[in-house]
Amino acid sequence: MITLDEGSGGKAMYELIKKIRTELNRTRIKSKFKSDWKNTDDDGATLNLSNLNFRNIVFTTDSYTVSPIFFPGGDIGKLSLCGTLNDLSVMNAVPVGMSLSLIIEEGFEKENLMKIISSIGKISSETKIPVVTGDTKVVEKGKIDKIMINTAGIGITKKVISNSGLKVGDKIIVSGGIGEHGIALLSKRFDYRTNLISDCAPIFEQVRKISEYVTAMKDPTRGGIAASLNEMAEKSKVRIVLDEDKIPVKREVKAVCELLGLNVYEIASEGRFVCGVKAEYAEKCLKILKKFNDGASMMGEVVEGKGVIMKTAIGGTRILDVPSGKLVPRIC
Amino acid sequence: MITLDEGSGGKAMYELIKKIRTELNRTRIKSKFKSDWKNTDDDGATLNLSNLNFRNIVFTTDSYTVSPIFFPGGDIGKLSLCGTLNDLSVMNAVPVGMSLSLIIEEGFEKENLMKIISSIGKISSETKIPVVTGDTKVVEKGKIDKIMINTAGIGITKKVISNSGLKVGDKIIVSGGIGEHGIALLSKRFDYRTNLISDCAPIFEQVRKISEYVTAMKDPTRGGIAASLNEMAEKSKVRIVLDEDKIPVKREVKAVCELLGLNVYEIASEGRFVCGVKAEYAEKCLKILKKFNDGASMMGEVVEGKGVIMKTAIGGTRILDVPSGKLVPRIC
Repeated sequence: MITLDEGSGGKAMYELIKKIRTELNRTRIKSKFKSDWKNTDDDGATLNLSNLNFRNIVFTTDSYTVSPIFFPGGDIGKLSLCGTLNDLSVMNAVPVGMSLSLIIEEGFEKENLMKIISSIGKISSETKIPVVTGDTKVVEKGKIDKIMINTAGIGITKKVISNSGLKVGDKIIVSGGIGEHGIALLSKRFDYRTNLISDCAPIFEQVRKISEYVTAMKDPTRGGIAASLNEMAEKSKVRIVLDEDKIPVKREVKAVCELLGLNVYEIASEGRFVCGVKAEYAEKCLKILKKFNDGASMMGEVVEGKGVIMKTAIGGTRILDVPSGKLVPRIC
Repeated sequence: MITLDEGSGGKAMYELIKKIRTELNRTRIKSKFKSDWKNTDDDGATLNLSNLNFRNIVFTTDSYTVSPIFFPGGDIGKLSLCGTLNDLSVMNAVPVGMSLSLIIEEGFEKENLMKIISSIGKISSETKIPVVTGDTKVVEKGKIDKIMINTAGIGITKKVISNSGLKVGDKIIVSGGIGEHGIALLSKRFDYRTNLISDCAPIFEQVRKISEYVTAMKDPTRGGIAASLNEMAEKSKVRIVLDEDKIPVKREVKAVCELLGLNVYEIASEGRFVCGVKAEYAEKCLKILKKFNDGASMMGEVVEGKGVIMKTAIGGTRILDVPSGKLVPRIC
């Protein structure tokens, strides 16, 4: 059990932090960036940039509270590292270093903490992206719900991809089935039996393979594709027209949404992205993405106008609006 | 009152975020760095580095939970920006951009939120350091206590100052009276009447003026100078000898510590730093620091050995140990 002592700046805290570090390093990251980071035991970590060839750094942050903290396909640790890695990825940045800030409730099981740290370590190891700096706070019982995590990340890139770069004529591609993260969480929360697992995963390998053809990109997390496509359309000053038929939704996701009256287009994914690609390269990109995930789909196109319109299966059209009101479930 | 809608990825959230941005920009930061940051409305902010002349970036993060959130001399907003700015400063980095991640309890007063954002904006404006990226989450009532803030920061530097660089013969200087932040908070919590205000403030102007003479530096936050000096001594493999007489402690701070049986050396400051400086420059540094704060004091020196030893006013010596156990008050 975690005690307040372990967040107090004293001996107990240093011991806890040492355990966390060990767990994160246990995975022995072999990264060309890792050795470039110094002072990782100091107040901040430093990166000597002299040897890196790039023009821009990209900087992003996200805080994660999720219930349940362990869910099919992941946990809050995996989620918090992937989420921030993915925010860098959709901007075409190669992540070079991450921060990890933990706020832990007094009495939280140390075993569970170490499970969470271990899944962060695993993703860090698989993606070769080091966690280079961090912070650990322990708060009185009842002041938070178990654990909250903030991650921030720095990436480097020669060419930034923005979410506002859609051009008329572009095709809209999604990298896999939507809503699987939100529905996996919700199923677990309601003890609904399903084989569905969260899609939570890093996306940057996929992004890297197609980024030269991409005009705009975003990950459909909070608010699902309804939120992210509307944001892209608005910022790009264009209209997106979707074929409802071609929006990839797994059977189990559809079933739970129908059961609970949820709009599947508003449900979060945590390992998917939506992007605009130049029409002439759209088939090529789709083929590449299908190698990673069979659910990848060219689901729409960009035209003049504004907003997001959906051509329905029965031949009609309707507006896919920005979500409003409380979203179920809270997933990030 | 903040509602769950305002963290849901939908319309209400975008409106809240717009208000926050407006408040942060209202202060019209005139920073040479601000205009270099682009895509600040995207998933992350980007900084083109081509025009900057430096070797290293420094990256740090900190999460803040504090009670009360408004205290004499500041609030959680000021604290969270200063804290991370100061972590960059003690490493001799010039902060170039900050992230701001808010986790807000449903039902939190919007007026209070805007007060907090406004004090972040004020510090950002005064220091000319822009907040370039962020995240806003709203969680169900009772799941957190009012508000938590995480800030991360990127700084640049030609020469990193570490907390492990103390050398035998160095003088130890503290930049002002210790423990004022912790005791101001505690006084407010217990309704103890005092004129004391928190020392919470950015330190980088002071640091910049003396950094060329500094061998190691740290800000005595959690665990006070007891924690930070012990960490510096241990990492530098030296002993620090302090003159208890010369440790600057305000009368009000001393009074509250005596009243509550607290060890003043374990109480946090949020706008002070302790550093080692080469002996030949110690007087010069002290003179510079005294211009910022009359409480600045040369309070000790570095010798061979380990740990932190205090020469007491009555001629004895005692060990100043690393704090252990729960620290009162939790201040960051």
